[in-house]
Amino acid sequence: MADATPLRPLPAAEATWDRTADVVVAGYGIAGVCAAIEAARAGSRVLILERTSGWGGAAALAGGFIYLGGGTPLQKALGFEDSPENMEKFMLAALGPGADEDKIADYCRGSVEHYEWLVANGVPFKAEFWGEPGWEPPHDEGLMYSGGENAAPFNTVAEPAPRGHVPQMSNKRTGSKGGGYMLMKPLAETAEKLGVTAEYDVRIQRLIVDGDRVVGVVAKQYGKELDIRAEHGVVLATGSFAYHDRMIEGFAPRLIGRPGAAIEEHDGIAIRVAQALGADLAHMDATEVAFFGDPQMMARGILVNGRGQRYVPEDTYPGRIGQLTLFHQENQAYLIIGEAAYEQSLTTETSTPFFRQPPTWAAETIAELESDMGLPELALQSTVELYNKHAVDGKDPLLGKKQEWTKPLEGPFAAFDMRGFTAGFTLGGLRTDLDSRVLHVSGEPIPGLFAAGRCTSGVCAGGYASGTSLGDGSFYGRRAGIAAAKN
Amino acid sequence: MADATPLRPLPAAEATWDRTADVVVAGYGIAGVCAAIEAARAGSRVLILERTSGWGGAAALAGGFIYLGGGTPLQKALGFEDSPENMEKFMLAALGPGADEDKIADYCRGSVEHYEWLVANGVPFKAEFWGEPGWEPPHDEGLMYSGGENAAPFNTVAEPAPRGHVPQMSNKRTGSKGGGYMLMKPLAETAEKLGVTAEYDVRIQRLIVDGDRVVGVVAKQYGKELDIRAEHGVVLATGSFAYHDRMIEGFAPRLIGRPGAAIEEHDGIAIRVAQALGADLAHMDATEVAFFGDPQMMARGILVNGRGQRYVPEDTYPGRIGQLTLFHQENQAYLIIGEAAYEQSLTTETSTPFFRQPPTWAAETIAELESDMGLPELALQSTVELYNKHAVDGKDPLLGKKQEWTKPLEGPFAAFDMRGFTAGFTLGGLRTDLDSRVLHVSGEPIPGLFAAGRCTSGVCAGGYASGTSLGDGSFYGRRAGIAAAKN
Repeated sequence: MADATPLRPLPAAEATWDRTADVVVAGYGIAGVCAAIEAARAGSRVLILERTSGWGGAAALAGGFIYLGGGTPLQKALGFEDSPENMEKFMLAALGPGADEDKIADYCRGSVEHYEWLVANGVPFKAEFWGEPGWEPPHDEGLMYSGGENAAPFNTVAEPAPRGHVPQMSNKRTGSKGGGYMLMKPLAETAEKLGVTAEYDVRIQRLIVDGDRVVGVVAKQYGKELDIRAEHGVVLATGSFAYHDRMIEGFAPRLIGRPGAAIEEHDGIAIRVAQALGADLAHMDATEVAFFGDPQMMARGILVNGRGQRYVPEDTYPGRIGQLTLFHQENQAYLIIGEAAYEQSLTTETSTPFFRQPPTWAAETIAELESDMGLPELALQSTVELYNKHAVDGKDPLLGKKQEWTKPLEGPFAAFDMRGFTAGFTLGGLRTDLDSRVLHVSGEPIPGLFAAGRCTSGVCAGGYASGTSLGDGSFYGRRAGIAAAKN
Repeated sequence: MADATPLRPLPAAEATWDRTADVVVAGYGIAGVCAAIEAARAGSRVLILERTSGWGGAAALAGGFIYLGGGTPLQKALGFEDSPENMEKFMLAALGPGADEDKIADYCRGSVEHYEWLVANGVPFKAEFWGEPGWEPPHDEGLMYSGGENAAPFNTVAEPAPRGHVPQMSNKRTGSKGGGYMLMKPLAETAEKLGVTAEYDVRIQRLIVDGDRVVGVVAKQYGKELDIRAEHGVVLATGSFAYHDRMIEGFAPRLIGRPGAAIEEHDGIAIRVAQALGADLAHMDATEVAFFGDPQMMARGILVNGRGQRYVPEDTYPGRIGQLTLFHQENQAYLIIGEAAYEQSLTTETSTPFFRQPPTWAAETIAELESDMGLPELALQSTVELYNKHAVDGKDPLLGKKQEWTKPLEGPFAAFDMRGFTAGFTLGGLRTDLDSRVLHVSGEPIPGLFAAGRCTSGVCAGGYASGTSLGDGSFYGRRAGIAAAKN
């Protein structure tokens, strides 16, 4: 089916310029705001085109993790040692296979400076650490493990250091704004102070070219087409393609019917307008995968697949549980937990009370449970028997769950049906270089065209850690602004 | 890194025409030859441009399976019932998620006619069935299960029917040509009889366009650039991107260092020249995965992952074992087998003697074996105990291996290290419609441009069955030739 928009670039000779700026940024989320700030600081007149009625994008609705490390002042203040090399080791192990090694090295080397830049631009981080398993800190703590750094197998690959930096919220529980909002707000205010202008309810349609060079963008506002001239460059930053059905079906079919953690405006338009110019793509199948289980409960139980087999250390980053469940276990997962441990998880201060649900099954014995759940005969019994034999000694040779969480399962038992408990957003997109220049399929940059954020392929390929998306979006958003201004 | 070739299309006004034909086909493999035959039959002057010094491509080196069904004369002659609907059910279950449903339905409906077309064009099929587990028939048998149709879980989804049609070889064991050669030879002879001309040692470089329309191709022969005019259309059929490192790293990183079952000429050039025109892509991460294990041995033993857990019915299509091992088990696989069963597998007439290897480990007990192999303590013991409990009754509730292969493992035991035993080729590529027109990212066909074979995304997405690649390559190769001639 054809798109409503033609996508093919408009020759500059046919454009009737309605607006002009030095740098035109499409999308006012995390990548767009960072690009705008840096371009404005470099002396450019910057115009942001935003599809919705206000700044924010997916970032403002997100938990707000920014993946930073290598020894940030926050890490140091909280007593955690880290280095760019150590951070790089983890990211290469956790975000591949096929992750962009140059980008990861670059990102790790620039991480401390990037933290300082965010702080200098008003983003607040509270020097408090949250050490419990969970998706996000429950209050306004500023630092947390967010990628399984302290769990098997990564805790044997690199020295564990928490790198999930969360902008400080006033009080999350009373319904005030979350970390992502507290990231976007000071940055949007900074942009405004620098004279960045924004137009809202504007959708980009296609690029305007002069020969091979991008010199503007056609956008639509209230039904009217606008030809917007970019004297120095266009920065694409309109987010993922999680809500473009044809792209999901063609590139990331495991997400069919389960887009999540992105906003519906994420329609892949930046990717498509650049593809129409011959832009190259990368890792279009890569996705973040959320898993709607309570980490406090999961750590205290065992997760099994549709065959009743364990497959992931239950105390790791829940996003990793999500990926391994969706990618490798056909989205089949069950949590088995002893009643006492289940009760304990409910009274623990946990970050994700909304993931709590009543057990799907309950039984005195694993044999009963196995039969009630319809698992293959003897399979769950075999799994629990093996788990318990080692758990008596606090050991988990099969998967390396940490000793503190490894205790024998004791009846009566509860089991939770977690099949299909996943949703996610896409991580693949335009191939860009370290200056956020969009690369043509020939490998050469497309003159005048820059991109950052989730319309690009960033530091992730097969894996994910919370904060890498706002992380590389902000990091390479800045690069895009700098490069476009200079262009 | 930039490509040596510029890839960007050449405007027709700048071309100096060195050759002219109605239909220009790039690549003389299975898709190319089928396109050429149909275009010639439709009255077009056809010129094939081939990079090597002769016809054949990867097809001529392949085992020669063509995936056909729905009740072909060969299936009927051998007593197998099948229908297009039944075939479609299997393909949808086995080749997804995300497989192109329209293409699969179209392919199944056209399958009997396609068989007849191949036969009419000289491709011989011997009415003999080979029913043993294996990669290929050991002699000149014409029909075999080639996608796990008769194994769990697909044998419960659709009525099992063998669909791997193999052109007859004179005598495979005496070193004569294989099934793929016997497919290509009569088709190449047919093309020649129809007046199709071919030039060899010619590499395509970029397309030539008149506005949005493709009107030719720039190619290089012995260092000289040739501008070749296509009055009706260009058909791209140059194969996969298995040997283009940047594409593999960016799209199918699990294949890094393990390209296989394709020829080194498979450099993705067709995909890239079309991308430069804004062509859309699909399923770039999809890959076929070969697994270098002897199916006769595997069926008699159990396959376990790096945690000592079973994960696949050992009597299924070995390509499925390969995919599940590489995609879901981090390429970690071990085969455990009793000595007597191992000896038996060696004396069985099997299709893949070259996959035989001496055991990596041997031990009197599973406990010893587990320890020697360095598997997690008690894990393999637990797995074998569970397997044997059911195998006594010929049952495998965990994975559904068929009764005939499900027997208790009895010591002494042998184990084979099969980690990294995979290689594969890519299945993703240009997005095409049912007439093999290359689709622009806008969803509209790119005028004058057609493609088929492994430079396109065909009937496979996540899964694979042997014969689907030569199958959709030949099927949509024909469509490309017909559509280009009419254009």
